[in-house]
Amino acid sequence: MTASTPLDPGSVTPATVVAVRRSLDGRWASLRDEIRARDDFAQLRVPPGTDTETYRDRVWEMLAQLAADGHALHGFPTSVGGHGDIGGSVASFEMLAFADLSLQVKSGVQWGLFGGAIQALGNAEQHARYLPGVMDLSLPGCFGMTETGHGSDVQSVHTAATYDPRTGEFVIDTPTESARKDYIGNAARDGRMAVVFVQLYTAPEGEQPERHGVHAVLVPLRDEDGTVLPGVEITDDGHKEGLNGVDNGRLAFHGVRVPRENLLDRYGSVAADGTYSSSIESENRRFFTMLGALVRGRVSVSGSAVGAAQLALTIAIRYAEARRQFAAPGGDGEITILDYLAHQRKLLPLLARTYALRLAQDELVEMLHDVQTTREAGGDVDEKRQRELESRAAGIKALSTWNATEVIQVCREACGGQGFLSENRLGTLRTDTDVFTTFEGDNTVLLQLVAKGLISDYADDFGNLDTLGTIRFVADQVLDTVAERTSLHSLAERLRGATAGDDDQLLDASAQIKLLDDREEHTLDSLVRRLRPARGKGVSAARAFEIFNRAQDHLLKAARSHLDGLVLDAFNRACEAQQDPAARQLMRQVCDLYALSVIEADKGWFLEHGRLSAARSKAVTAEVNRLCLSLRPHARALVDAFGIPESWIGAPIATGDEERRQREADAHAHADAGEHQV
Amino acid sequence: MTASTPLDPGSVTPATVVAVRRSLDGRWASLRDEIRARDDFAQLRVPPGTDTETYRDRVWEMLAQLAADGHALHGFPTSVGGHGDIGGSVASFEMLAFADLSLQVKSGVQWGLFGGAIQALGNAEQHARYLPGVMDLSLPGCFGMTETGHGSDVQSVHTAATYDPRTGEFVIDTPTESARKDYIGNAARDGRMAVVFVQLYTAPEGEQPERHGVHAVLVPLRDEDGTVLPGVEITDDGHKEGLNGVDNGRLAFHGVRVPRENLLDRYGSVAADGTYSSSIESENRRFFTMLGALVRGRVSVSGSAVGAAQLALTIAIRYAEARRQFAAPGGDGEITILDYLAHQRKLLPLLARTYALRLAQDELVEMLHDVQTTREAGGDVDEKRQRELESRAAGIKALSTWNATEVIQVCREACGGQGFLSENRLGTLRTDTDVFTTFEGDNTVLLQLVAKGLISDYADDFGNLDTLGTIRFVADQVLDTVAERTSLHSLAERLRGATAGDDDQLLDASAQIKLLDDREEHTLDSLVRRLRPARGKGVSAARAFEIFNRAQDHLLKAARSHLDGLVLDAFNRACEAQQDPAARQLMRQVCDLYALSVIEADKGWFLEHGRLSAARSKAVTAEVNRLCLSLRPHARALVDAFGIPESWIGAPIATGDEERRQREADAHAHADAGEHQV
Repeated sequence: MTASTPLDPGSVTPATVVAVRRSLDGRWASLRDEIRARDDFAQLRVPPGTDTETYRDRVWEMLAQLAADGHALHGFPTSVGGHGDIGGSVASFEMLAFADLSLQVKSGVQWGLFGGAIQALGNAEQHARYLPGVMDLSLPGCFGMTETGHGSDVQSVHTAATYDPRTGEFVIDTPTESARKDYIGNAARDGRMAVVFVQLYTAPEGEQPERHGVHAVLVPLRDEDGTVLPGVEITDDGHKEGLNGVDNGRLAFHGVRVPRENLLDRYGSVAADGTYSSSIESENRRFFTMLGALVRGRVSVSGSAVGAAQLALTIAIRYAEARRQFAAPGGDGEITILDYLAHQRKLLPLLARTYALRLAQDELVEMLHDVQTTREAGGDVDEKRQRELESRAAGIKALSTWNATEVIQVCREACGGQGFLSENRLGTLRTDTDVFTTFEGDNTVLLQLVAKGLISDYADDFGNLDTLGTIRFVADQVLDTVAERTSLHSLAERLRGATAGDDDQLLDASAQIKLLDDREEHTLDSLVRRLRPARGKGVSAARAFEIFNRAQDHLLKAARSHLDGLVLDAFNRACEAQQDPAARQLMRQVCDLYALSVIEADKGWFLEHGRLSAARSKAVTAEVNRLCLSLRPHARALVDAFGIPESWIGAPIATGDEERRQREADAHAHADAGEHQV
Repeated sequence: MTASTPLDPGSVTPATVVAVRRSLDGRWASLRDEIRARDDFAQLRVPPGTDTETYRDRVWEMLAQLAADGHALHGFPTSVGGHGDIGGSVASFEMLAFADLSLQVKSGVQWGLFGGAIQALGNAEQHARYLPGVMDLSLPGCFGMTETGHGSDVQSVHTAATYDPRTGEFVIDTPTESARKDYIGNAARDGRMAVVFVQLYTAPEGEQPERHGVHAVLVPLRDEDGTVLPGVEITDDGHKEGLNGVDNGRLAFHGVRVPRENLLDRYGSVAADGTYSSSIESENRRFFTMLGALVRGRVSVSGSAVGAAQLALTIAIRYAEARRQFAAPGGDGEITILDYLAHQRKLLPLLARTYALRLAQDELVEMLHDVQTTREAGGDVDEKRQRELESRAAGIKALSTWNATEVIQVCREACGGQGFLSENRLGTLRTDTDVFTTFEGDNTVLLQLVAKGLISDYADDFGNLDTLGTIRFVADQVLDTVAERTSLHSLAERLRGATAGDDDQLLDASAQIKLLDDREEHTLDSLVRRLRPARGKGVSAARAFEIFNRAQDHLLKAARSHLDGLVLDAFNRACEAQQDPAARQLMRQVCDLYALSVIEADKGWFLEHGRLSAARSKAVTAEVNRLCLSLRPHARALVDAFGIPESWIGAPIATGDEERRQREADAHAHADAGEHQV
């Protein structure tokens, strides 16, 4: 692999931009193009400052419009009239990030979470009965998982469903205020039914009630007129930092009875007499299999975060190309702010990281599609591959949502006061995406999941989100051997073979990969050594927790190190696959900037561990600066390659209005200077 | 100075908390206590989700209430009925950060910016005529500095005031759309008058018009009924990411005539015949003297940012002490999230930095007070001291506003979904303070101002915000010698003498200071060497710009390195001054955490430059972890020491409601488990 070299501005043509866009669009490029062609998409936005009730109304209307257009069909099974295209459903969901994020999240609640849960956990009869209404919006629904007292720790939810064999019904109860289902989209206003996650209890006649762990039950909330049903208590979560077009609320149930058929019973069912049965014996494994089936939600949030970051960068880079500030000494007129290294340093490494995450996200969606399509067709999915999917979804979701938060914030600041005005969208993008880092799994908890995937081979009873509960298991069973690493580094292996050890080539992809691989391996090895003393029956629970807790930052670092390598691999694969020479050269430079920015951000580690000499470490910073300067002429082309249609951008500072203003200002200023000649 | 040692939980008593609070409150402690005692303060908030017009109404009403209570009097001269207490005006402004930030900013516009400009730039007659109405709100006004096309580069504003000697009036004109005054608080709805920053032109009869640079003129905007006056064009900036209780707008002027007496003429006046005169000959120096007189605005924003960060940390740490998640293996019940190292790592270093900035801010306010009080009393202020004040104000404002953005964001995430609900205030704090990093001077531009202060002795014609225009000057005149360093490190000097070079004592204050001092010195020396080639008449302007631009990241690093040291000095001084032994020990630990976090964040630099060995660098990280664990029991005491009254906190997750919920949940859960005994 050759080092990247700067490109002449002239060699990047519209065709280059198209070629880069193809790389970024991935397997669902033609679906993305279809959606891009929709003129009406730009209308799918609600003016900032709209009051909450009007906003909710408007989002509901737009959702109905999407439903009428068949937007919901992609991901649902062909048996109920859907397209059976899971990857397509994620890609089309992503595109809504360019419209209104409340609309996107509301659609995600209805079709991704509510419909997706029925699809993933329900049986064929339930599919036929409910999914058509889910798709056409005649059955608006909720996804009742999170409780006020239990967010990421879903396994500890307290809502109970107790089977009553006398009537053949489940009795749904919310035992405490903190067991209320909370932050539930569609709950405060529109939902008619909810998938409610409960602790399932059965008590065959004459026997003690038995708990079978977390299951999902369909519970009607409102009648056709929207009146809340008896025993259901709904409160509004009220105003939120963002996403105020979504009607989040709290649900509590007081002795609500639903028929036995309302249990979504793919992984566990209850016979009329109350006998419980499941194809998966271990409660823990059953729980994680069920959660695993719902992984699409996490993948979708990740895609939305990448889309929001792309839009923010498009706005900020267009503005930075038009905005001039401070006169150059001896120069004519003021300097374009993107010509300042400090401004490039703010935006371009984040642009490179967003490229990298876009490409990693594309691979994630392909993996999701392949795994779930195989399963829906009745095929066997390797359990290891399923776990790999879940681990990647967790990790990429964490990286891409944190990336969105940082990118949009930096873009807002890079646009100054203009960025603070809602008309320029950055403020709204920030507030609407803020919760992404903590919903669909808190990012810190997700990284721990990734780390645990790395240090264990996922024995049957292992792999849950409860980090602490598994310390003993990890310590006792798997810490002797560092588990085999994931098999995702095949390209890396090949490249490593080629030029590993060549110390001076920071722009050599294989050298970059080697640095990240080394870090991952060392971090993981040393983590395992640190956790080993927690092993053995002689170690108290308190001591085991202490050992784990003192290494928690190390655990998180291991996860991040792994993910950085995985994302870089995706970028390298995309560069390799790119056929257009100019596009490939451009992408290689962006990839170099990504890799070196990652290394620069953690140069302390590389120096501490002898992976970089002091001189080479300084060279990393110098190279990042050089890459910023040499990519600066192509910044506009790089955001154009995101392919966000002009009419969707919607920010006056990005769509020429501001450029016009500035030109006019310059013209007047010159005239003015002439008029008042000193 | 002895190393900090962990404290027993029991040794931190309510008296310790009071002692720490005294340190944080600084010179205006009793004024702060007076304001804390105000019960009605908690009512000074507007419910989230309030529509813009209602919000503006409500903020106006609250502002009137503050005016009626005499809140505005602190900072105004005794000659017009004020208290002449400049530091007190900043301290009382800061306290409003705990109420509603729109109210705070609106008060800042009225009394700090509009009133402050009249006070700083006007003459005694103007004071007597306008300030009473400013204080009692009968004359609501605007501060018209920023233009759409010119934010931080105020010297380039295009609005013109041309003197017409025939009528004795100035004619105010907005030559282009981008010369409109923009983001102007009080403009869209309430302002009756504006201080407008203009390029001043005079043309004594028969002569060519002459430009005298930027001046400030009082321009009426609306009549008593609120009707916009002829020639004045006002548009609303519309909805913003935050601060929607402030009516920001754009002002344009079309041949608006105001009497000659409306020029705020402390630094430049125009005689009836159009003759211009000023006590400061150089236009550049006059401009920066004028801006320097307005430094209070920047100091106030900085204080507000510190206050907002304190409130966010109070909420997040109280929540983290109450919230439990995931069961410990073998333990009873779930673990308090603040017991996780990852959670401590998120919050405690930021808490330490907020302590440090609080103390640096206190010193800044004292300096402001002393300098401006001396000047208002007619005394002489050393020009060097004035520049030091401006440089510190710029630097501390940049650090504290970026700190607020980061702190509030992390606190939001640390509170999960609860943090996203507006009732818990974190989302609103985030959006309301977001613009702080770019208003009152863009932070990146401010850091450049600090850096330039470091590399030059501020010759008369030097020291403006236009970095580029001064490259030549810097290169030609001052680069041969690294200018004398600031004299602020006196404590550092003393401590350095004591134990410098003692390599193993990371917890030794002098060792920490030495590391930061070394970094500052080395960064500055090497910066000067990099810029030296820009020197000489043979170097083209383009080349000089290129040399400067390629070192821009280095320039920013020099500024930050300097500021980190300055902030650490403030913290050390406060520890030294603390008389209560437990409070002192506690503060020393927090100070260690601050210093070591700063070093850890830049460990790459310390390793590259041989200031830390690999082993010592790793020890820094281990020490930060140890400090997090040993400060954890005192986290609540540390936020209690911010002294935010219970009734002002206002977030249900922080004020016991959530604790009650959680206790109840635990009780029920146990009962529940018993009931369904397996």
